[in-house]
Amino acid sequence: MKPDKPLILISNDDGVLAKGINCMIEMLKPLGDLVVVAPDSPRSGAACAVTPSAAVGYREVSRAEGLDVYTCTGTPVDCVKLALQELVPRCPDVIVSGINHGDNAAVNVHYSGTMGVVLEGCMKGIPSIGFSLCDHRADADFAPLTPYVQGLVREVLAHGLPEGVCLNVNFPLVDAFRGVKVCRQARGRWEQEWETATNPHGKHYFWLTGNFVSHEDNAAVLAAEARGEAPLWPDALALQEGFVAVTPTRIDVTSYEQAESMRSWSLSF
Amino acid sequence: MKPDKPLILISNDDGVLAKGINCMIEMLKPLGDLVVVAPDSPRSGAACAVTPSAAVGYREVSRAEGLDVYTCTGTPVDCVKLALQELVPRCPDVIVSGINHGDNAAVNVHYSGTMGVVLEGCMKGIPSIGFSLCDHRADADFAPLTPYVQGLVREVLAHGLPEGVCLNVNFPLVDAFRGVKVCRQARGRWEQEWETATNPHGKHYFWLTGNFVSHEDNAAVLAAEARGEAPLWPDALALQEGFVAVTPTRIDVTSYEQAESMRSWSLSF
Repeated sequence: MKPDKPLILISNDDGVLAKGINCMIEMLKPLGDLVVVAPDSPRSGAACAVTPSAAVGYREVSRAEGLDVYTCTGTPVDCVKLALQELVPRCPDVIVSGINHGDNAAVNVHYSGTMGVVLEGCMKGIPSIGFSLCDHRADADFAPLTPYVQGLVREVLAHGLPEGVCLNVNFPLVDAFRGVKVCRQARGRWEQEWETATNPHGKHYFWLTGNFVSHEDNAAVLAAEARGEAPLWPDALALQEGFVAVTPTRIDVTSYEQAESMRSWSLSF
Repeated sequence: MKPDKPLILISNDDGVLAKGINCMIEMLKPLGDLVVVAPDSPRSGAACAVTPSAAVGYREVSRAEGLDVYTCTGTPVDCVKLALQELVPRCPDVIVSGINHGDNAAVNVHYSGTMGVVLEGCMKGIPSIGFSLCDHRADADFAPLTPYVQGLVREVLAHGLPEGVCLNVNFPLVDAFRGVKVCRQARGRWEQEWETATNPHGKHYFWLTGNFVSHEDNAAVLAAEARGEAPLWPDALALQEGFVAVTPTRIDVTSYEQAESMRSWSLSF
């Protein structure tokens, strides 16, 4: 017999103390039983990293009716792997990650520990969603996201997601969302990524920073939209225009086009 | 004026002391000027992780005609980012990662620091290739890979790669390679991923391990091959059958099919 309530596994990369995950826990309480397994400290930029060369542990923080909370010493992906094998009472109906302090649109999806959780859930065949807000501040206001987070999780609980596909949801920092856009990953790249500093002994060291340079022709997308062609928007454009960006994301990273064109390569060595 | 020799940036995730990267340096010396920027210690499983919350540094190990070697305190992706901004004399013609001790086929591409290097290079618009051998041993024999590594790097130097596409090359552990197959990422998942141990104080901790379970119908692929249909092989099958697997990999992880089908979703909240 299937239990009455959905089981929702929650993790993130900002760690168990971040405001984003705690706001999301409150948002998702009405939707099901929650198991939270989150890193014991921030792991921003952890991507899909795992811990192959050190032991990983977990700690029970609290157990209550419908809400069990654990911390894990590993990466966001370790949290999911450990939760699934050791901590959940049954297979989760959905895995939800975030809400991240900072966006994970465009190429940021590749560096994101928030999306590491989601990709790992997807690799395990479980419908998975990541939520991120374009606001890095520790006290970011997540309240306006509530109906969107609840609505999207309800949609996925009701309809599931195809094998190998998960969702990357990003919220702009605006007074009022203009709606939801289903998007594609925006093209562009990070430049000027290091700020140099000098330690007291005269040695240089480097802090990761950077400017994101778009490679999209956003004006062309907006013009196509104005002509009623319903183009697929780049996620970064949707955010810029005040829309919630939902980017369906896949775990098969094969370039089938390139595979086809490589048939003509000489590959005898 | 373009310099006579190609510039090749080399990194890995096993660290600067690993046999794999040092064998690859020897293989690539005849092909161009080399700049090596590798992690100062092993970073297996680092994926596309970056270091946003700590300072990163580098150290010059050696400088010689055509071969500069640096170590970096950061992740494999940090190595590439720091190399491109601070260490290379000009934009590299190709970025080469590995040779990894252990394969990065199937979903392993997502956890791989070797492929982190490659994806980062690709995100920067530079043709990038990762090499991995199905042999985790520190003293693995890389010599038989030489003509393949040289040949594939020469191909990419000559023809480039399309924007947003890189190559994930995996070598089987066999007496003689049967040839090269252009492949797709194999479907399957890791199961039973943690081995439990107990510390002297009675507390459980966990080591990452696991069994890879294929979700491919390999017999069907082999049957199609026998009928002369030239199917695209899953990379894990190619390795199993003794072929070098070349999987073209893309940085756009959008699921365009799902984006299309989500047009019918109700997304007003």
